[in-house]
Amino acid sequence: MSAVTIKSLQHRGLPFQVGGKLWIECKGKKFFGPGPVELLELIQKEGSIIKAARAMGLSYKKAWAIIDSANRMTARPLVITQSGGKKGGGTLVTDEAKKLIIYHRSLRKRFEQFLKNETKRLNR
Amino acid sequence: MSAVTIKSLQHRGLPFQVGGKLWIECKGKKFFGPGPVELLELIQKEGSIIKAARAMGLSYKKAWAIIDSANRMTARPLVITQSGGKKGGGTLVTDEAKKLIIYHRSLRKRFEQFLKNETKRLNR
Repeated sequence: MSAVTIKSLQHRGLPFQVGGKLWIECKGKKFFGPGPVELLELIQKEGSIIKAARAMGLSYKKAWAIIDSANRMTARPLVITQSGGKKGGGTLVTDEAKKLIIYHRSLRKRFEQFLKNETKRLNR
Repeated sequence: MSAVTIKSLQHRGLPFQVGGKLWIECKGKKFFGPGPVELLELIQKEGSIIKAARAMGLSYKKAWAIIDSANRMTARPLVITQSGGKKGGGTLVTDEAKKLIIYHRSLRKRFEQFLKNETKRLNR
């Protein structure tokens, strides 16, 4: 069996790829994956759920549902909406959520590297 | 922002978990994930698609569809069915498929370790 390789299963010039996805679970439920984190990043950038939703091609309702669901999973909110006041309201990403965004960014990089290494190993 | 931690987002005693799944792609399509590999392992053990399907709670039709779809993705078959002959037929997992099973087993172990490390990092 030593001469037999996984490579011989491949169609010529079409190496296999190891693919995958990650998420963060809270109480055994998925609560934070690529979608929510992209939305949070955009809210942080735009300071507005409407603008962030638009940039992702989501309805405000859908974007708010994602945020609301994440907010309910955590002991402190990830996003705070302020209405009225001198500046006429706005949407804030909390410092804790910013930490989560930073962690998720580095997690993605490590996962990309993991998949790259595995793809190499598989096609050896 | 330095005193703020991801940990403070957690409900007491409920650490976050990093979860995920992996698959192998061929021609940009998922073709080999935990389901097919379990089926192959069982066919290897039982020498029969029917018995393997039964052990996984699948119909023969469904099990065959999984095998057939994987067989079509690879340059050589993963599973060979032999009909008739002195031994009255049987189902063989090819040596290449056995290599793929072994790789997948080690991949799963490395991925479990990756998720464990990330879960630790996230809850630091």
